[in-house]
Amino acid sequence: MPSVRRVCHEFLQRQELTTVFGNPGSNELPFLAELPEGFRYVLGLHEGAVVGMADGYAQATGRPVLVNLHAASGSGNAMGALTNAVASRTPLVVVAGQQVRPAIGPEANLANVDAPSLMKPLVGWAAEPACAQDVPRALAQAVFEARLQRRPTYLSVPYDDWAADAGENASAVLDRQVQRAGVPGADQGRSLAEAVAAARSPALVLGGDIDSAGLFDDAVRLAERLGGPVWAAPSLFRLPFPNRHPQFHGVLPAGIEPVSREFEGHDLVLVLGAPVFRYHEYLPGRYLPEGTRLIQVTEDASAAARAPMGEALVADPAAVIDLLLKALDAAKEPAGGFRPAPAPATGQGTRLHPEEVFASLRDELPGDTAYVVESTSTNSSWWRQMDLRRPGSYYFPAAGGLGFGLPGAVGVAMAQPDRPVVGVIGDGSANYGITALWTAARQRLPLTVVLLRNGTYGALRWFSGLLGVPDAPGMDIPGLDFTRIAKGYGVHAQHAGSVDELRALLSRRPEGPRLIQVDTALTTPS
Amino acid sequence: MPSVRRVCHEFLQRQELTTVFGNPGSNELPFLAELPEGFRYVLGLHEGAVVGMADGYAQATGRPVLVNLHAASGSGNAMGALTNAVASRTPLVVVAGQQVRPAIGPEANLANVDAPSLMKPLVGWAAEPACAQDVPRALAQAVFEARLQRRPTYLSVPYDDWAADAGENASAVLDRQVQRAGVPGADQGRSLAEAVAAARSPALVLGGDIDSAGLFDDAVRLAERLGGPVWAAPSLFRLPFPNRHPQFHGVLPAGIEPVSREFEGHDLVLVLGAPVFRYHEYLPGRYLPEGTRLIQVTEDASAAARAPMGEALVADPAAVIDLLLKALDAAKEPAGGFRPAPAPATGQGTRLHPEEVFASLRDELPGDTAYVVESTSTNSSWWRQMDLRRPGSYYFPAAGGLGFGLPGAVGVAMAQPDRPVVGVIGDGSANYGITALWTAARQRLPLTVVLLRNGTYGALRWFSGLLGVPDAPGMDIPGLDFTRIAKGYGVHAQHAGSVDELRALLSRRPEGPRLIQVDTALTTPS
Repeated sequence: MPSVRRVCHEFLQRQELTTVFGNPGSNELPFLAELPEGFRYVLGLHEGAVVGMADGYAQATGRPVLVNLHAASGSGNAMGALTNAVASRTPLVVVAGQQVRPAIGPEANLANVDAPSLMKPLVGWAAEPACAQDVPRALAQAVFEARLQRRPTYLSVPYDDWAADAGENASAVLDRQVQRAGVPGADQGRSLAEAVAAARSPALVLGGDIDSAGLFDDAVRLAERLGGPVWAAPSLFRLPFPNRHPQFHGVLPAGIEPVSREFEGHDLVLVLGAPVFRYHEYLPGRYLPEGTRLIQVTEDASAAARAPMGEALVADPAAVIDLLLKALDAAKEPAGGFRPAPAPATGQGTRLHPEEVFASLRDELPGDTAYVVESTSTNSSWWRQMDLRRPGSYYFPAAGGLGFGLPGAVGVAMAQPDRPVVGVIGDGSANYGITALWTAARQRLPLTVVLLRNGTYGALRWFSGLLGVPDAPGMDIPGLDFTRIAKGYGVHAQHAGSVDELRALLSRRPEGPRLIQVDTALTTPS
Repeated sequence: MPSVRRVCHEFLQRQELTTVFGNPGSNELPFLAELPEGFRYVLGLHEGAVVGMADGYAQATGRPVLVNLHAASGSGNAMGALTNAVASRTPLVVVAGQQVRPAIGPEANLANVDAPSLMKPLVGWAAEPACAQDVPRALAQAVFEARLQRRPTYLSVPYDDWAADAGENASAVLDRQVQRAGVPGADQGRSLAEAVAAARSPALVLGGDIDSAGLFDDAVRLAERLGGPVWAAPSLFRLPFPNRHPQFHGVLPAGIEPVSREFEGHDLVLVLGAPVFRYHEYLPGRYLPEGTRLIQVTEDASAAARAPMGEALVADPAAVIDLLLKALDAAKEPAGGFRPAPAPATGQGTRLHPEEVFASLRDELPGDTAYVVESTSTNSSWWRQMDLRRPGSYYFPAAGGLGFGLPGAVGVAMAQPDRPVVGVIGDGSANYGITALWTAARQRLPLTVVLLRNGTYGALRWFSGLLGVPDAPGMDIPGLDFTRIAKGYGVHAQHAGSVDELRALLSRRPEGPRLIQVDTALTTPS
């Protein structure tokens, strides 16, 4: 009979989870022993960076990814990063090492006490199998639950289990397949199509799930058929639509009242692939204008159930776009060409305006560049200057949890070696995932990190004005030099003191990872 | 009526929780507004570092400490660090900002979904008050639970609560005091004293709690009265006894069979202030030799309940030491003087042997230096060379979770400005809490960090041999230069290429924080 380890390795091979992001400890060694040919272990120096890298990699490949973490301490280090993976609906399969079975109850050092509870309420499913022979089946469940729920899952495995005999039924798991159907029934489809066709002034709201699901181009076709305005959903983590498309009205503001104001005059708002809505600032008001009907289509049953207003259809957005394209008339009159960006605002002295930085990126880098952005105070500058027309062009920490940016950029670069990848990272953000630079260096990724240094938590400073709390402490972060830090982690780094210097640096294709630091003027997110 | 914020600030002042370690986000701003004179906010750039600093500060001051974290993402980032605080029984009071009440259910961005469950099973108590008027009482409970349980607690507060009217009963909380009695009853005390007095060959095992509770010198008195061998408990996080004292037999090995072997020939083992025991390596065997009786005295009810063998008395170890000193005869014959350290093993070329590094620390630094150690592969070298005779001389990550060392050293240095503080940090460890360097620079702490660089996860490498898994990936970490990283965070840094260079640097008193990097030969923990 094969060992539990052998069966699990083979299952992971069959499911194509052979890239493992991790940071190992003693409890994990027996799982990592005898990894078959074809497995790749990507080491991160901190578990927050490990999960951020895995998240970026999983998002860019569109596939579940295996993460290997160390007991409670390593799992704990990863939990902030998991909040983003939850919000971006990234199917991470986290396997954590546990002490040997006799050592768990007495709480030996590195015992993960009550491990299945540790990661709740973040993960969609968590378990520690009750015996070694259940480990292969439980691992399969962890993978399938992550895929079905599109949410991280967590499996804790006592390290003495891996060498155990897997038992006579172990191989049954190797052939398992689990799929989910999501096409609306005939009545559901007809009813939806009729509502859309009958709308006098329909509006479309697209969530990050649309890009995750590979529906960026389909969404354009649908929008052009509908002819109305298109917004991206608030608290956006993936761009679902070309941001300079004539129908694009931008990212919806993240407050109840401002969203409602945007919808004025529309009798139907069709929301595809988004919660309704991920508000942030609390700006109360009516959820919807009088007479506006909202229909939400999402695969996320919880997002449908918890929404405070509207009708919801839990279904595959791809199937819904498909049926609407079939049901609707041919495209309306085109709304004109792509809108050009305005001239960028300018900074002062050696402090560049973020718009100048972003205009430089737009002009100097190829049109298929993928950007992983974690610079929150420059949000409005970003959308004013960028011109993103391709799927998978934009990633942002989905829960607003800092620490996704740098690691996420590493993960995206690993997933797409033939596409230019740029991390756009604030000086506050960078510190939450700084060690990812080391992995970028070890993997020799042609990754560019543009580090925007304004010396403060800019978005927080803006928020403190919004909340009338100007005197809060802990908002300034002077004295950071990321060129030195990057070099310490083995990454080539330079400071750009002017737009010309920045453009000159960007125009050169990177051979390995590089960091470009620029000092920027303080701006506000909106 | 005063606001909830006003009452809470005043309560914190009365309880002397006026040093706040934090990393703020929007949800936290209203709590941080109008902080009264005398509050000090210590900013960390990553929540793992924030909790590590608070842990070191709380341990060195012996008092509960307030930690302020941001929603689920910031709390999640801190969870690895909390595993150490749990094991060291550090009373951290974590207050996290929550979205406004109407935004929690619909899961607005930065809503901490099911917040009280998030930190379980790590914290001893967690809550989100059901209304604003319950916040002051709940904050008091968080402080008292942390103190009574000696375990971190967690309070999630919707940010709209802080400005609310506290209600007519709010001030009742200001006068609350909660204490715990822990003196054994007369029968309990007599029975224990008789058992000890009757023992033919008693042995003493002291846990880290002895140093935490300020009982280092009392433990010496008790040991000299008993006359037998003294061990420190396995998986040690604080040194409870002078390590070159003639009765000291070292830190117990962290395996069942080796511990049992050490106890051969002793009819009584008295364990004070420790779980029985925090094993690590699984080396099965009999828990105790035939005929050995074990009595555990601890304030930690869970440690008493979960132990797999022995008798336990849940009581204040101070009271127990006191009653034993009164009950026992005068001191036995002294066992001789303090044992000198052996000549240090020597390294090769520019790679120093860790024993040479530690001998340099021992010789060049004052005898009251406090060391925060997170270099796991050099453990045996450490104890061979160091000579620690004062309370509060040694801190180590109590759960074995890396990331305590650097931040912990910052916290200890803040707590004890008049005592030399040295962080002894491995190159693997440093990355889990690297941003604490920035706080050290901002606080201008006269802290020395000795960075031991061997290019690998040395303890893990040793473990891989122990488990027969020599082929595991992810164990080497080349290409790190911590002098550059430290300078990037504003810390003075130098590389010492020889013992003489190291000694010369150490002999100079630091004016602010400094990092000294040395390359070291690979050693094993034991």
